[in-house]
Amino acid sequence: MVFIRVTISGVSKDYRTVWMKGNSVFMINQPMIPHKFEVVEFECYRDTARAISEMVVRGAGAIGAAGGYALAQAALEAPDDGFLEFVREAEQVINGTRPTAQDLFYATHRVMESVCEVEDVNGARKAAVDEAQRIADENVHAGEMIGKYGVDLIRDKMRVLTHCNAGWLAFVDWGSAIAPVYAAKRCGRNVFVYVDETRPRCQGARLTAWELCNEGVNHAVIADNASGYYMRKGNVDIVIVGADRVACNGDVANKVGTYEKAVLAHENGIPFYVAAPVSTFDLSCRSGDDIPIEERCEDEVLSMFGWSSELSRMVNVRVAPEGSHALNPAFDVTPAKYIKGIITDAGIVKADKKAIGKLF
Amino acid sequence: MVFIRVTISGVSKDYRTVWMKGNSVFMINQPMIPHKFEVVEFECYRDTARAISEMVVRGAGAIGAAGGYALAQAALEAPDDGFLEFVREAEQVINGTRPTAQDLFYATHRVMESVCEVEDVNGARKAAVDEAQRIADENVHAGEMIGKYGVDLIRDKMRVLTHCNAGWLAFVDWGSAIAPVYAAKRCGRNVFVYVDETRPRCQGARLTAWELCNEGVNHAVIADNASGYYMRKGNVDIVIVGADRVACNGDVANKVGTYEKAVLAHENGIPFYVAAPVSTFDLSCRSGDDIPIEERCEDEVLSMFGWSSELSRMVNVRVAPEGSHALNPAFDVTPAKYIKGIITDAGIVKADKKAIGKLF
Repeated sequence: MVFIRVTISGVSKDYRTVWMKGNSVFMINQPMIPHKFEVVEFECYRDTARAISEMVVRGAGAIGAAGGYALAQAALEAPDDGFLEFVREAEQVINGTRPTAQDLFYATHRVMESVCEVEDVNGARKAAVDEAQRIADENVHAGEMIGKYGVDLIRDKMRVLTHCNAGWLAFVDWGSAIAPVYAAKRCGRNVFVYVDETRPRCQGARLTAWELCNEGVNHAVIADNASGYYMRKGNVDIVIVGADRVACNGDVANKVGTYEKAVLAHENGIPFYVAAPVSTFDLSCRSGDDIPIEERCEDEVLSMFGWSSELSRMVNVRVAPEGSHALNPAFDVTPAKYIKGIITDAGIVKADKKAIGKLF
Repeated sequence: MVFIRVTISGVSKDYRTVWMKGNSVFMINQPMIPHKFEVVEFECYRDTARAISEMVVRGAGAIGAAGGYALAQAALEAPDDGFLEFVREAEQVINGTRPTAQDLFYATHRVMESVCEVEDVNGARKAAVDEAQRIADENVHAGEMIGKYGVDLIRDKMRVLTHCNAGWLAFVDWGSAIAPVYAAKRCGRNVFVYVDETRPRCQGARLTAWELCNEGVNHAVIADNASGYYMRKGNVDIVIVGADRVACNGDVANKVGTYEKAVLAHENGIPFYVAAPVSTFDLSCRSGDDIPIEERCEDEVLSMFGWSSELSRMVNVRVAPEGSHALNPAFDVTPAKYIKGIITDAGIVKADKKAIGKLF
């Protein structure tokens, strides 16, 4: 089932994006990708939580799995006396790391429920770890199913446009938006991907491009500004993006800029699909207006982080003048009317209340 | 008439973006802005032409003025014997530096005509320099007139969104898209500007933000991806951009991403204006389809150039993986149907053939 095969200095090895072993959580250190591949270990839940907020791990499904593991770590760390209070407090800390990604709350809620179902403390600890592991495994399976349901949208020689990273690095494995591309590639179809660089953190240029290099998928990185140009030229056959939260009316929160791509796809008659597992749907949100949008630090916009070959390390460079400020919403909401369908692990559904209701 | 007041280490001085003195052309070195202010001198026309293609100077009006000056330099350099051949060859070299900006061809054509009108070589040299100077002065005046005609579009407390840099650095002075903002500010109106950073070369984050800092105009830099978010939230009252070429049906070529902003403004009922002097109109282009779009080097997308405070100098950092390629169209075409009006130095006109025809 494992799919991420990373080749470093000629040696190939399979990885997941995030995993747990003993009391530790391990992650691929995503801010260093594509310049350096390294795995980092977090020995306590607070460190894992900090890694989520600092985006060592990011992407809806991967955040969810990491959050579940973090809460399992908290259960292992919690004292016998005041066990439940400790775990409940940890849940608040973990849920506070990223406000938009629904998979985070989905995972911590499930681990919390598994803890509460068992009376004895050691049994609860084991239940928490088992449940966190189950969530991660389900996430891998969900990606695989999204690939299976989405593969027929991608015919031979199609040109796909994607925004941000919704490949294996955004999940435990496989991914959401890119899973159908990988599935199509495995069927022998020739696919070309336009990769929006996705400022400010450039998850497209850094992560999606690196995944596609690893998978041997033809692609070109483009400035986010150029996607409309290629859509209008007729060079884009389909747009597929991931989601951080789906409301019950089909509105979707995803990486900032997704709304722009959806409007442009609509204007140019290009089908616009969202790919997300059922765990990303939040039935408590009636529409996108109910989804909180994370505002991140202005430095992400005013500066850029990249690899200096001259210095052989990551360097931060300032782009804007010292006197300027920035605004940095991390996500936006795409209204359902622009979305042709949502590719889920339970099939492709329309982005409307009725179709989504049937999923649950 | 001079307007660019730059304050360096507490000392204020007035500048133009580009000017000629003796046989030399001088320019503000724009790739170093906002991190370092320096003026560079080019002693021969080939160096000035190279400075245009390497974007030491950029922006429609400033390219035009620099191109006119470069051809005047060529006239000064040309030998008495074979004078016209030398100048004609120089015109080809200068026109080959940037394929999209109409002001370049407008300027070299005018200087060439002035050269051909005079029989004696020394008279032709003087005519070339005078004409190049006249073009630069007219460019300043055009910016001032665009400000005058556009000022009433910007009421007190309005929030303007702009893309790329169409301020004084894009002209000889004043600018096009930002000229009405400066004019409104001088009338005491409170204006806020959302500045698209404008990847890949970040002319918004670097140049527009720096101009607005110098002028004391409230602003925030945003990722290009965030402009749709703010438009949909109702935070943007008007969009104003510049133009590199206007076709006779009102289609506009401008910095890549302009088309995206126009579609999003249209979708959200926000007036979208283009500001450009009459010299930017190209009546030989029936529509935007006739405008050639410059493809630039992929490194502009794969990397980022910025200031390292650690090293106290400009540094280039790689963002995308070594195995990835990029596509880098520098401009796109916005169809006239998305444009509410074109603010010219001869008044605000509709973006259609009839209204544009009346300008000439």
